[in-house]
Amino acid sequence: MDILMGIGKAGLRSGNKPDLLVILLPQTCNASFLFTNNHFKSASVLYSQKVFKGKVRAMVINSGNANCGVGREGLIHAELMAKRVAEKLEIEEDEVLVFSTGVIGRPMPIDRVLDAIDSACSLLEPLDLKRASEVISTTDSFPKYDFVKKDKLEAFGFAKGAGMIHPNMGTMLAFVFTNADLREGVIEKLHRDINERTFNSISVDGCMSTNDSFGLISLGLIKEDLQKVSDAIEEVSLSLAKKIVQDGEGATRLIKVKVKNASLQLKARLIAQAIATSNLVKTAIFGKDPNWGRIVAAAGSTPFPIDQFKLRVYIGNHLLYDGKVHPKALEGAKKYMEESQEIEITLDLMEGKESWIYYASDMTYDYIKINAEYTT
Amino acid sequence: MDILMGIGKAGLRSGNKPDLLVILLPQTCNASFLFTNNHFKSASVLYSQKVFKGKVRAMVINSGNANCGVGREGLIHAELMAKRVAEKLEIEEDEVLVFSTGVIGRPMPIDRVLDAIDSACSLLEPLDLKRASEVISTTDSFPKYDFVKKDKLEAFGFAKGAGMIHPNMGTMLAFVFTNADLREGVIEKLHRDINERTFNSISVDGCMSTNDSFGLISLGLIKEDLQKVSDAIEEVSLSLAKKIVQDGEGATRLIKVKVKNASLQLKARLIAQAIATSNLVKTAIFGKDPNWGRIVAAAGSTPFPIDQFKLRVYIGNHLLYDGKVHPKALEGAKKYMEESQEIEITLDLMEGKESWIYYASDMTYDYIKINAEYTT
Repeated sequence: MDILMGIGKAGLRSGNKPDLLVILLPQTCNASFLFTNNHFKSASVLYSQKVFKGKVRAMVINSGNANCGVGREGLIHAELMAKRVAEKLEIEEDEVLVFSTGVIGRPMPIDRVLDAIDSACSLLEPLDLKRASEVISTTDSFPKYDFVKKDKLEAFGFAKGAGMIHPNMGTMLAFVFTNADLREGVIEKLHRDINERTFNSISVDGCMSTNDSFGLISLGLIKEDLQKVSDAIEEVSLSLAKKIVQDGEGATRLIKVKVKNASLQLKARLIAQAIATSNLVKTAIFGKDPNWGRIVAAAGSTPFPIDQFKLRVYIGNHLLYDGKVHPKALEGAKKYMEESQEIEITLDLMEGKESWIYYASDMTYDYIKINAEYTT
Repeated sequence: MDILMGIGKAGLRSGNKPDLLVILLPQTCNASFLFTNNHFKSASVLYSQKVFKGKVRAMVINSGNANCGVGREGLIHAELMAKRVAEKLEIEEDEVLVFSTGVIGRPMPIDRVLDAIDSACSLLEPLDLKRASEVISTTDSFPKYDFVKKDKLEAFGFAKGAGMIHPNMGTMLAFVFTNADLREGVIEKLHRDINERTFNSISVDGCMSTNDSFGLISLGLIKEDLQKVSDAIEEVSLSLAKKIVQDGEGATRLIKVKVKNASLQLKARLIAQAIATSNLVKTAIFGKDPNWGRIVAAAGSTPFPIDQFKLRVYIGNHLLYDGKVHPKALEGAKKYMEESQEIEITLDLMEGKESWIYYASDMTYDYIKINAEYTT
């Protein structure tokens, strides 16, 4: 691959770590970007949303400062960052996108950031996914990247994030690339669909960030069957999404919530989401408690009716409720919860053919510690 | 007041505590009842919803068992409870309502419950609000009741609840009475309006119970101006609602979230709710951290747009953001958070005239402890 990266240090993160990453693509690429729906958006998101017109040549990403909640100055800073990258790399300014992640409400020390861009652009090297993830990390405890190769088809990416919002931090960022050619019009739809099943089906704390961004970039090097390309991109995206959940603040377990045999896909999805974002379900998983009462209470809380005398609830393979209780199954379920790192909850609505899977982290003392004790 | 109560023991709660309460009204009364919107409802809720036609004479309430998630048997049990009360007190069966609160998924030991009804009905005494709250409590740490008297007008009530759902428990129950005469048609609307501003504007953990019920009963003894009656009922209802939040699982603080100067009341309400239910805001309050970034991130997460360059955020009287940051105000805000039991967050949208207030508890280590360590 011919993607290059440059690394700089603007002193935005503690511990003198690199905190600025420039990514230069081999040529202008078709791409699709999805940004947070939060109305209180980072100025970097507002800037990138404004300039992006389906093509991208370079990206500049800083960690340690969200460039959010700093008033209109943030917009000027984002523009200055893009302009500097364009000048240094001699590319079009409107093909440079800007991303930020870190503390909200702290003005960006823009001079230091521009200096870091200068040094990053002056020493470009081939993209190293692991290193790229490390540079854009904030409180992540491990780098997040993956690579899929199927014959000539490649899909790969890197991400950061350990919660939809961090202690004072904003954000999940994810960038996925493929060597396959994806046309304008095609790439956006494929990107949106994959996003729904991956990054939009995970939850650490149910909170929506000000900075979330997910980019999909087509390098346009090979022609390949669209379904195969889509599958490879989804595989990488889901892998990155699951890593974010695994690294969820204070998490000890990955929870996989599957709602199946629903009459509508939206219904399956909203019920899976209600279970995956329930604090009571998440604390029960942490407590290794096969508490199916909390699962059905969460399942009943969406606008969609459910038939409590028909549905079935499983933890692992253990059937705990199917219109009547199965007290003897609790022991097996508890044992499963004690022994497994990934806890699978299945709700079978017994009414149709649609299903959805949602991933979540459990909720622990460390979630409270991380979010209550790190003060501004 | 001529409301009578009887107390029984069915052995549903640990510690040999009374767990069954029968309330007998002096005559058949106009009333309004609101039940949980959860689709996985307690059988007691399903039964009471079915029989209630605007009139009530007696109520039977058990704690320690939610009569929920036990299949169709639960419906039969609820009916048997109502029937037994009607027989013993020689009143109409369809004017007896049934309420349950406690563990989900545990079959009701109906013989013991019916025996407890017999003894409760055989020794009636005047309603004691404090005692009534104690009998229907589950993990509540204090009884919840209040009494308002304005000249001849009286409004009073009792409640239980320390979370929308407890560890394995279902529920908030609240019963409010007035000596004023409220006609059918009038009482329902007044009840719904008050409910929106009181019990529907509190959150401990954002979880919806299977058993929540709120009853308003008019004893019809005096004629009084409707606005005065409504104010008195709202005063009692808000007092009970705030007590539930104060007793929220593991709570150390009451959070009052006020969203003001919104263009629409619904917008003010949804934004207040988003802030009040944000785990990140709630952990920040526990950590005494004036983390306004989390407040605006929550405020931006609803479907309603907000203008980030215009809005103002206050903690107490401390202005922390108004399109620009005020780092110097953080210290005062922190001091206020350290010294206050009730933390007031104000978001001024600077765009209209509508406002809403939402109450929440903070999120603490004890929330995790209560919900992770109490296993089935």
